[in-house]
Amino acid sequence: MGNGYMGKILKVNLSDETVKSISTDMEIARKYLGGKGYAVRVLYDYLKSYEKQGIAPTDINPFGEENVLIFATGPATGVSGFPASGRYHVMALRSPLTNGIASSNSGGRFGPLLKFAGFDAIIIEGKSDEPVYLEITDGTAEIKSAKDLWGMNTFDTIRLLSNRIGKECSVACIGPAGENLVYFACIINEEHRAAGRTGVGAIMGSKKLKAIVVSGNRRPEIAKPEEFKEESRKALEKIKQNPVTGENLPKYGTAILVNIINNAGALPFKNWQSAYNERANEISGEILTEKYLRKRVACWGCPIGCGRATEVKEGAFKILSTEGPEYETIWALGNNTAVMDLAAIIKANHFCDELGLDTISMGATIACAMELYEKGYIKEEDLQGLDLSFGNPAAMVEAVWRTAYKSGFGKYLALGSKRLAEIFNAPDLSMSVKGLEMPAYDPRAIKGIGLNYATANRGGCHVTGYTVSLEVLGIPKKIDPLSYEDKAKYVKETQDFACVVNSTVNCLFTTFALGAKDYASLLSCVTGWNLTVEELMRIGERIYNLERLILNAYGFDSKDDTLPKRLLTEPLPDGVAKGHVVELDKMLPEYYKLRGWINGKPTEEKLKELDIP
Amino acid sequence: MGNGYMGKILKVNLSDETVKSISTDMEIARKYLGGKGYAVRVLYDYLKSYEKQGIAPTDINPFGEENVLIFATGPATGVSGFPASGRYHVMALRSPLTNGIASSNSGGRFGPLLKFAGFDAIIIEGKSDEPVYLEITDGTAEIKSAKDLWGMNTFDTIRLLSNRIGKECSVACIGPAGENLVYFACIINEEHRAAGRTGVGAIMGSKKLKAIVVSGNRRPEIAKPEEFKEESRKALEKIKQNPVTGENLPKYGTAILVNIINNAGALPFKNWQSAYNERANEISGEILTEKYLRKRVACWGCPIGCGRATEVKEGAFKILSTEGPEYETIWALGNNTAVMDLAAIIKANHFCDELGLDTISMGATIACAMELYEKGYIKEEDLQGLDLSFGNPAAMVEAVWRTAYKSGFGKYLALGSKRLAEIFNAPDLSMSVKGLEMPAYDPRAIKGIGLNYATANRGGCHVTGYTVSLEVLGIPKKIDPLSYEDKAKYVKETQDFACVVNSTVNCLFTTFALGAKDYASLLSCVTGWNLTVEELMRIGERIYNLERLILNAYGFDSKDDTLPKRLLTEPLPDGVAKGHVVELDKMLPEYYKLRGWINGKPTEEKLKELDIP
Repeated sequence: MGNGYMGKILKVNLSDETVKSISTDMEIARKYLGGKGYAVRVLYDYLKSYEKQGIAPTDINPFGEENVLIFATGPATGVSGFPASGRYHVMALRSPLTNGIASSNSGGRFGPLLKFAGFDAIIIEGKSDEPVYLEITDGTAEIKSAKDLWGMNTFDTIRLLSNRIGKECSVACIGPAGENLVYFACIINEEHRAAGRTGVGAIMGSKKLKAIVVSGNRRPEIAKPEEFKEESRKALEKIKQNPVTGENLPKYGTAILVNIINNAGALPFKNWQSAYNERANEISGEILTEKYLRKRVACWGCPIGCGRATEVKEGAFKILSTEGPEYETIWALGNNTAVMDLAAIIKANHFCDELGLDTISMGATIACAMELYEKGYIKEEDLQGLDLSFGNPAAMVEAVWRTAYKSGFGKYLALGSKRLAEIFNAPDLSMSVKGLEMPAYDPRAIKGIGLNYATANRGGCHVTGYTVSLEVLGIPKKIDPLSYEDKAKYVKETQDFACVVNSTVNCLFTTFALGAKDYASLLSCVTGWNLTVEELMRIGERIYNLERLILNAYGFDSKDDTLPKRLLTEPLPDGVAKGHVVELDKMLPEYYKLRGWINGKPTEEKLKELDIP
Repeated sequence: MGNGYMGKILKVNLSDETVKSISTDMEIARKYLGGKGYAVRVLYDYLKSYEKQGIAPTDINPFGEENVLIFATGPATGVSGFPASGRYHVMALRSPLTNGIASSNSGGRFGPLLKFAGFDAIIIEGKSDEPVYLEITDGTAEIKSAKDLWGMNTFDTIRLLSNRIGKECSVACIGPAGENLVYFACIINEEHRAAGRTGVGAIMGSKKLKAIVVSGNRRPEIAKPEEFKEESRKALEKIKQNPVTGENLPKYGTAILVNIINNAGALPFKNWQSAYNERANEISGEILTEKYLRKRVACWGCPIGCGRATEVKEGAFKILSTEGPEYETIWALGNNTAVMDLAAIIKANHFCDELGLDTISMGATIACAMELYEKGYIKEEDLQGLDLSFGNPAAMVEAVWRTAYKSGFGKYLALGSKRLAEIFNAPDLSMSVKGLEMPAYDPRAIKGIGLNYATANRGGCHVTGYTVSLEVLGIPKKIDPLSYEDKAKYVKETQDFACVVNSTVNCLFTTFALGAKDYASLLSCVTGWNLTVEELMRIGERIYNLERLILNAYGFDSKDDTLPKRLLTEPLPDGVAKGHVVELDKMLPEYYKLRGWINGKPTEEKLKELDIP
């Protein structure tokens, strides 16, 4: 009888070229579940251990051999019948983009196949001199030369390694962007699934780790198979009956949000100069479905299937056999750059997947460059012919490959919007928090997401605490997006619950249909622990606080829990929230109080309460 | 009193990191002039010296440290009043594209400035482990680190190094294509001047030599300044009066040839499937001038000024402040790929200059891939979304950057058409000779150029013996392009004279107006040698034969003096030469006889006659 875990973690040191298997620490698992939570705890231990060796947290170089990279699954990953448990979480001590903690999450099949290969997680220390990849099969692992793979795009890398393995496997890899240390390079698996944010692909690149291949025939066992069957059935039914997970996401994918968020006056346009675009429907999920959809695609074990297999059959942006784009991608590469051309967005998204770039940071950085150019900070001669005018589809697409290869002006884009705007003397034009570009929801029209952006540990991030569900979609209940009331409470709860989901590891989209109670029941059957809702939420809070401690060690505090000046001082010029800014001080003190933090730092008391060492 | 030479050659060993100055050998100069001739002689000596060390010619790896790269000027280079003497010649023992000798030529200001820096030539041995550049100023030279330049495009490299030097200078450099060892990477100076052919940029890349910067205030002195003044005046007058050099080239640039060659039924279309295109005028020099020309551009000391400063003001291929494209480029990237879009061609040409790619081989290789795709040898899945259909402008432009970065399908294009067609099982579809892609003149309609392609030492090359001047333009007299009569004689003479011009070093375009007699007069004044026409032509023949000896050492012989099967067996389907193929055996035996060659090899007797050691 099992508990959902494989019981083994693979520990790799690329400097020493050693590989060993250690036991999954069930005490840590009990307190941090798996995935993100387990990884945060392991990273915290590294931080403490480095301090003992005299390496201060602020001395940790994101591209140094002291950075530690973790691929982690959770007790639910790869468990048949646990709906949408096909994901894995990637974390690293330090992100090149934010200088904070690196954290990202991806779907597909890699997570389950890592467990089928026999491991709950991979911890990667050190860095290699020469390109390597990691081959993990049925409980064993080997570091192999990737000299012949270096320079390859993600599609070729996946195809070549899959052919070489010759049996069912999954490959997580970087493209040229990761190799070239683009600060927002991502990790790609299954060709179009991305651990996108905070530059985890660049960290792999700095370690000269081109890819990880996983395969195997092991399976996680669970504690209460019969009870689980019933809970699983109930959960699947809820997902099926829910209008978002049962209808909208399967039918339109995440792009259904384009019109919804635009109508809420919250769809940032032209680098957040406004948040309503009367032409938004041209790049909506409805048009995507009508014109470009080939078929639905689902991650391993997912009953929702929000993925889109798409194609552009003709024209300058012709691209056959691709996937996506997601809502945030359409926004970043399209609405935010004023490129109202879905074909161009699909092509640019394809390039991002092929070359290994985070679509949100890519689009947001292009949009930032466009505003810098529009306002005269970037001169025409700086661009060497790349016409970064708002609304230029060809330049937007060209900017993507230029970034991956740091070609021409791409060398600036490759640094992300924060450094780009600093270099061109207009730092306020970077629409980022803690260096991470914010995604597709303007908090001037959705106040709660603003508090979340400001306080999210990894920076400008929506999935850290997706209050949009409550504030716009009305799930599980509708609250007023423009009100500040109780937003602190909702943000905290949402953030803590997201920690649970990312540590389970499961897809956040299930939370449209499933609450903490469902998670407690499902996880109890898998682990045999009889988890209560309170305990589960306490685990989430513990993870969030421990992650915050790491940030604090790097020097982040309340001064960093803020938003770009534009959101605080420039009223929205149009849309339903016209005239609004974000009054952060109407939410942040309450949030800190609820969190038990002072100046953005957990108090001793809070840490004790959460049983954090 | 001087002789046109600076008297010094810079010898650099990148393996040992040594730099020394040796004297220009005036005995060699007397027999081989300078530029190409001098370089061929030096390379031949290396070959002999390697053989003594036990390194067979066929063991020489184009990317090995045994390859030797030479930048050479001639007695005319940088001499004021010697019309169009702003060029330099690049040669190397072995080309990655052809495995024969590498040879290329470029204009701009680099040649003169190399002499003003105090040197007639640079000989580069060995290879560096780390990226370096060479800084040559006023008789001194230094190898400097180029770590911060590696990855940069040619424009940035030139701008950065020029700023660093802070005085008038010229930079010859490679872009990403050269760094990535694309087999037809070129060397770029003055942003849009290219030593384009036979992959000399890849050789620089293999040596980790990013750039050479030259500057200085020295000047070549000449033997008979007063007499030279008079000869110079006469030569300039002839250039001015000549319809090609005085009218067409200045007004329309080389692109004037698009309609002329198309009307001659000799403009290859769709990878040479035909040679007449009724839409050719859409990409002609006349349209270029009308729609895209900003102003004329001239190389150092040139009275012709065939260069084009151009721009595409709007649309998907918008590009401000660029130059070109030349006739051969328009053909290769446009007519040959059936892309009838001058804006797309201008953009692709800009990418080639920026990234460091030979436009002829680039376009010809794309066209080859398009035919391989059209005929089903390349499958859609091989292309990963790059729609290489004939006539697709966006795919043509995308193929260019993909080649430079070996991105996706670009990794195949980067090998050139010969290897591409071999890999995809249709070797006959590579329209190349000795591995070098043929340029824009179909020999089925211009027989002499066919014999020249077949016998040109560097492979499928027009400038080795540009009989088009006689056969189509009627300069200095008109001969029938479809006749085989006397073509052997004209080809031999044209090839020998081109050797003289490339060793002078001067621009071949002067030969529309100036003959061997003019060259003999001008060079006599410069060198003080009283050169006769006969002696000059003998020098040309000597150079051609010595170059051929090197080819023979690599195993090239009469079996390689041929043309692609298509030209020998597929009659032209349309145009004025409809029904024609090339009957090489009506010219080749006579050519060999005139050359004194047997089986494509100079006889002992011939070598003795030419005083070749």
